[in-house]
Amino acid sequence: MSASWPVEIVNTGTELLFGSVVNTHLAYLGQQLFSLGLRIDRQTTVPDGLAIVDVVREATSRSQLVIITGGLGPTSDDVTREVVAELTGRTLRFDESVFAKIEAHVLKRGFHFSDAIKRQAYVLEGATVLPNDFGTAPGLYLPATPAFPDLFMFPGPPRELRPMFQTYATPIIRKIVGHSDLRAMVFRTTGIGESAIQELVGADLATIPAVEVGYCAQVGAVDLRLIGTGSAVEQGATIVRDKLDSYIVSADGRALEEIVVELLTKRNETLAVAESCTGGYLASCVTNVSGSSAVFLEGNVTYSNEAKIRALGVPGLLIERLGAVSEEVAAAMAEGARARSGATYALSTTGVAGPAGGTEEKPVGTVFIGLASAMGSTEVQKHFYPSDRLTFKQVVTQRALDLLRRRLSFSP
Amino acid sequence: MSASWPVEIVNTGTELLFGSVVNTHLAYLGQQLFSLGLRIDRQTTVPDGLAIVDVVREATSRSQLVIITGGLGPTSDDVTREVVAELTGRTLRFDESVFAKIEAHVLKRGFHFSDAIKRQAYVLEGATVLPNDFGTAPGLYLPATPAFPDLFMFPGPPRELRPMFQTYATPIIRKIVGHSDLRAMVFRTTGIGESAIQELVGADLATIPAVEVGYCAQVGAVDLRLIGTGSAVEQGATIVRDKLDSYIVSADGRALEEIVVELLTKRNETLAVAESCTGGYLASCVTNVSGSSAVFLEGNVTYSNEAKIRALGVPGLLIERLGAVSEEVAAAMAEGARARSGATYALSTTGVAGPAGGTEEKPVGTVFIGLASAMGSTEVQKHFYPSDRLTFKQVVTQRALDLLRRRLSFSP
Repeated sequence: MSASWPVEIVNTGTELLFGSVVNTHLAYLGQQLFSLGLRIDRQTTVPDGLAIVDVVREATSRSQLVIITGGLGPTSDDVTREVVAELTGRTLRFDESVFAKIEAHVLKRGFHFSDAIKRQAYVLEGATVLPNDFGTAPGLYLPATPAFPDLFMFPGPPRELRPMFQTYATPIIRKIVGHSDLRAMVFRTTGIGESAIQELVGADLATIPAVEVGYCAQVGAVDLRLIGTGSAVEQGATIVRDKLDSYIVSADGRALEEIVVELLTKRNETLAVAESCTGGYLASCVTNVSGSSAVFLEGNVTYSNEAKIRALGVPGLLIERLGAVSEEVAAAMAEGARARSGATYALSTTGVAGPAGGTEEKPVGTVFIGLASAMGSTEVQKHFYPSDRLTFKQVVTQRALDLLRRRLSFSP
Repeated sequence: MSASWPVEIVNTGTELLFGSVVNTHLAYLGQQLFSLGLRIDRQTTVPDGLAIVDVVREATSRSQLVIITGGLGPTSDDVTREVVAELTGRTLRFDESVFAKIEAHVLKRGFHFSDAIKRQAYVLEGATVLPNDFGTAPGLYLPATPAFPDLFMFPGPPRELRPMFQTYATPIIRKIVGHSDLRAMVFRTTGIGESAIQELVGADLATIPAVEVGYCAQVGAVDLRLIGTGSAVEQGATIVRDKLDSYIVSADGRALEEIVVELLTKRNETLAVAESCTGGYLASCVTNVSGSSAVFLEGNVTYSNEAKIRALGVPGLLIERLGAVSEEVAAAMAEGARARSGATYALSTTGVAGPAGGTEEKPVGTVFIGLASAMGSTEVQKHFYPSDRLTFKQVVTQRALDLLRRRLSFSP
């Protein structure tokens, strides 16, 4: 696929080279294009301004599809539109309907309307306008000519680019590229390391020559990637499912929280959480999932001991005797959250996130995770994840969600 | 600086183009090089394997310093060493001392020692070895010749590259480059748009020729960047401080939550939050800050109406009459959270995150943010941010934190 359809990405943005912003466009576009049967051959980042001229000239001479991000905004260093006009010998015309949409967007938000904003209503002759439903600058698609490949221009902010790509560019690219037999499956796993996975499935997968296998460690999870023809990937998937079994969270890259919300919805059950060391991150992960309000009743971020006692009914004596970071307090937090909210399940977290607060007995990284439910006794797991504060919150949240996922998946 | 010292980065790695891993090398190296007085002019990503040949040839012909990441590992698609040897006409020799270090590293971790691992002990003639203290493959530095620029090769994993860069490459680059007067300041602003900022400061900043001005829109914030000589940046900063005043969150790129925790700590005051539409994200942002446990008492993620009534004491009749998304309920949530926790301040959020749940009167994007405090009446702001679910949570959290920041900054 790649050989016959060279694809290049050009990212413009001084902030990307300066290091104040991480370039997430490449990973996003890589995933999206792959699902359309395309792979990116080369990606280049250049500063805002005229440095883009050489790079776009090179990319368009080498590739069959070129995607440019950034440089469509209102400020003076935004020159993508003008540079492409110059390179392709096209004129820029002021588009009244694009302008009306920009004006409506700006006024609706009560922003001040400036002349600079008006610049974004200029459109390349012959280009298809990709509407910006979440900002002002529209995207542009320029169909291939004998001298020039297919070319897309997107605004730089990810929250504008992503829905625009999905809604307006995907159908166009699908039409350009046609059918592809290239297929990918991404198994999201949790609770098992990268090399342990490779030991379980590596040798067996190597016997299928038409499958390319990749491993990618995430925080608290490992993705196992199979790329190849449809039938070969299916053959590999059977091996993976057989060997990795309950470690598999999803076979389409979906995150743990999506699976948990889906399982709760199917079972018509509800969840409450009581967080200490995860500080709201667990609740936030669950509420990121659209539709979670039907199954998520409430979260308690009980950072102080007083809050644990008042909001969750944890006995003060328990905290005094055993400490807030203990198996008993984790259980009492989960049970308290469940009893007060009336939820089917309640998860709790209490641990030492660090960098301060560790002791010899309970060093930074120690954590207890509780799960209370209607049936049976409360389950508490103890783990040890010494790491930085943010990673700790993420890993503990993954473990808590996986504790619930396993309960939901394997109990009637 | 940039004009006289063109710098390029070449990142190799199929996983970067496939989208399973975000390329964080560029942002890291951008920051590091800037602190050494250098700016990256161009960055390119190519797949593992021989695609690197053309890119390295182009980069070395254009630039004075080239940094290659990846392709030094044990597997067959790791070819950086061989490609550079070929391009520079140097031989590869087996280095016994490098080999001994790799062997010790592998055996210490109880890994299996394979012949493939041995490949990593080959070193380019004339190159300086950069020891790998966190992995097997060493980095390499090739000093400039009349035909070839200075060239660094680093292993791909960030946990190996970063300490290697800091410990072993920084002193070399400092020696090559010499003293630099280049300086940068990044003002984080919030509550004002990119083009409004440019209108306020653009013309005045343009009168300082030695300063380069950049704008970068984040979610709920805009960064304003000044780059130039020390005195010119100081001159620009005076203009920015004067014109943008209370919109400025920090002058060193620090985030809103860090500033809020710092202000609360200094004032010896505390915070509680009551979240509906932000679903725990507000609490999680605050608890991301190390030291927040001293000022953050508790969070309530009251997604259901029952939770708002029980946990926060919001009158049921209020919700029934005016709806959960209303000015009055936002105020009652904040006041309830403050009264029950005993915190100095309480923030509340209630809104329609979407995609479902909007009405004609209160469409998706409508949100009320409350701030209750010991002094004076409770303040409630109404905003409208139609966007995707995650962006909505982020923007509302920024607005809530900024409401508190302004109170903390401008009241005695």
